[in-house]
Amino acid sequence: MKKNIKIATIGGGTGSFTILSGLKNYPVELSAIVSMADDGGSTGVLRDELGVLPPGDARQCLVALSESSQVLRELFNYRYTKGGLKGHNFGNIFLSTLEKITGGFDSAVENASQILRIKGNVIPVTLKNTKLIAVLKSGKKIIGQHNIDEADISNLKKLKLEPRAEANPKAIFAIKNADKIVINPGNLFCSITPNFLVKGIADAVRKSTAKKIYICNLMTKLGHTHNLSVVGHLNELEKQIGKNVIDYLIFNKEKPDENLLKKYSKKGEYLVDYKNLKSGLKTKFIGGNLLSNKIFKQAKNDAIKRALIRHDSGKIAKIIYEL
Amino acid sequence: MKKNIKIATIGGGTGSFTILSGLKNYPVELSAIVSMADDGGSTGVLRDELGVLPPGDARQCLVALSESSQVLRELFNYRYTKGGLKGHNFGNIFLSTLEKITGGFDSAVENASQILRIKGNVIPVTLKNTKLIAVLKSGKKIIGQHNIDEADISNLKKLKLEPRAEANPKAIFAIKNADKIVINPGNLFCSITPNFLVKGIADAVRKSTAKKIYICNLMTKLGHTHNLSVVGHLNELEKQIGKNVIDYLIFNKEKPDENLLKKYSKKGEYLVDYKNLKSGLKTKFIGGNLLSNKIFKQAKNDAIKRALIRHDSGKIAKIIYEL
Repeated sequence: MKKNIKIATIGGGTGSFTILSGLKNYPVELSAIVSMADDGGSTGVLRDELGVLPPGDARQCLVALSESSQVLRELFNYRYTKGGLKGHNFGNIFLSTLEKITGGFDSAVENASQILRIKGNVIPVTLKNTKLIAVLKSGKKIIGQHNIDEADISNLKKLKLEPRAEANPKAIFAIKNADKIVINPGNLFCSITPNFLVKGIADAVRKSTAKKIYICNLMTKLGHTHNLSVVGHLNELEKQIGKNVIDYLIFNKEKPDENLLKKYSKKGEYLVDYKNLKSGLKTKFIGGNLLSNKIFKQAKNDAIKRALIRHDSGKIAKIIYEL
Repeated sequence: MKKNIKIATIGGGTGSFTILSGLKNYPVELSAIVSMADDGGSTGVLRDELGVLPPGDARQCLVALSESSQVLRELFNYRYTKGGLKGHNFGNIFLSTLEKITGGFDSAVENASQILRIKGNVIPVTLKNTKLIAVLKSGKKIIGQHNIDEADISNLKKLKLEPRAEANPKAIFAIKNADKIVINPGNLFCSITPNFLVKGIADAVRKSTAKKIYICNLMTKLGHTHNLSVVGHLNELEKQIGKNVIDYLIFNKEKPDENLLKKYSKKGEYLVDYKNLKSGLKTKFIGGNLLSNKIFKQAKNDAIKRALIRHDSGKIAKIIYEL
C-alpha cells in the first residue's frame, strides 16, 4: 500500500483553518503546528484570568481537522453575544478548562483532539507562556500580539518572544518527518512570524528535506505589510527562515468583488501585488485563481477582525497535494 | 438472556448523582428524570443571561451516568474560581451552549449524552421554561427556587410552577415502562417536589405498576423540613403523589461523625428521626447504615451549599437492585 504523504503546516488560526480544511480531504498525514503568541479577544481574557496558554489558534486548527458532528464543530466555534460570557468563544473556554484540569495545554489539545475526533495532530509550537514583542526603529517597544496587531509597525526593527521560548519537541519531530512543509497564510508579523521566533523551529525547517511551500497572503495590512508584494512577503519570511528555503510560493491572481475591495481599501488594505516575480532564487512562483466564492461575514461580538476575502481551501489543497 | 430491569429515578442534582452513581454499576436500564426548577448559582446566571433552561441538575445526572474518561467527567464538574467565569460551572456552560446551537435543551442533553458516553438516559422532567413559586399561609409569594431555598417556608400553603408546565413525553414513557421507580433524596421542596408539580408526572407515578421506592433524606433543613421525621417526609411526598403509592421507604439509621453533626446543627439541621414508623399504610420501611465514608467538602466558589453528609451510593443501589 502506498504510504500517505506527511504534511506539516505552520501558521496561526484563520489561515490555518482554511488550509487544513482543504488538506484533510486528501490521503495525507497532517500535523498542524500552531502559533502560541495570541493574546487578543476571548483568548487574551482567558490568558489573563485563568493563567492559561492561548487557546484560540489551536482551537481553529482542531475544528478544521475535526471529523465529529456538525453540532460539535459549531459548539467549538460558538461565540456568546450577551451576559458575562459575551465575546468569549466556547471552544476557547473548553481548551482552557481542560488545561486547568489536565495541568498542561498539550494534554488539553490531546483530550480535545479525541473528543473532536480530529484527523491528524494539532501541535502548539511551544508550551512556554510567552509574549510577542515588537521593537521599532525608534526604540519603542510594543508588548503583546494584540497591541502589535493594532499598532503601526512599519518602522519595525525586530520581533521577539519574551521570555524566550523553546520549541515543542512534537513540532520539531513533525517538521523533521514531513514530506511537505506548508507555511500558511495569515497575519505575517502576528501569526506566522511568531512560530519562527520559537527556538529550533526555523532551524528545523531549514534543515528539513521536505518540499517547502509558502501560501502568500491575499491582502496587505496597513502599518504591517502595506505595499509588500508577493516577493516582499517572501523577503520578510526569509528574514526568519533564511534565503533559498522556500521551494514553492503559491499566490493569488484573481480579483475579488469590487465592493469587497472597497471595504478593504477603506482600512488601507489592498490586494497583494504579484508583478516582478523575478527573485533570482530557487523559489518557484505558482499563481492561480485562488479565491473562495463563499461570503464570509464578521461574527457579532468577535473582538478580533477576521478576513472576509479568503483563499478557497479546496483549490489550495489540490495544488499542495499535487506538488 | 435475562432482560435488564428498567429503573426510572426522579430527583434533582446532588441526590440523583449519588443514587445514579451506584445504580449504574448494576445490569439495569436507567432513566434519570430530573427537575427543571433550578435557578440558583451558575445555572441561574445562565438562565438569566442566555435565556436557556436550567442545566445544573441534568449536568449532575449526566456526569453520574458517564462512562467516559475521568478527565471529561472532571471537566463537566469544573468550577471557575476567578475572572469573569468565576462561580460558573463548565458543564453548565457546555449544556447551555449546546442548547443555543441545537435550539432545544432536549437535544443539548442528547448531544452531551453521546459525548459523555452515558449509560442510560437523562430526561428533563419538562421542557417548559418555568419558575417554582411558594405561596405561604400569610399570602406571601416567594418566586424562584433559589429564593425559596433560602427562605423560611415553614408556614407553606402550596408550591406551584408558573407558567404551568407539561411533562416531557419521554419522562412519562420512562415512568410507564419502569419496573422500579426511585424517588431520590434531595431538597424536598426545591428539588424533589417540583418534579411532581409538572402536569402528568404524579399521575403517571400513581398509575404505574412499578415498585415505588423513596429514598428519604438524611438531614432536616431549617424552615423547610425542620422537625420532619421519616414518616413526616413521606407525608409531604404523599401530598404530591397521593397516599398508598410508595411501596418501600429506605431510610438511614447510622449516626454521622459528631463534628459533622455539630456543623449541621449550627445551621439548624439535624438527623432525620426514624422513630414511630407506624404509618398504617402499605409502605415498608427499610432502615440501614447508609452513610458514605467519603469526606465531602464544599467546593470553593460554588454559590450553592451542598450536603457534606451523604448517602453511600453503593449501599443504596444494592438495596434498590435487590428489592
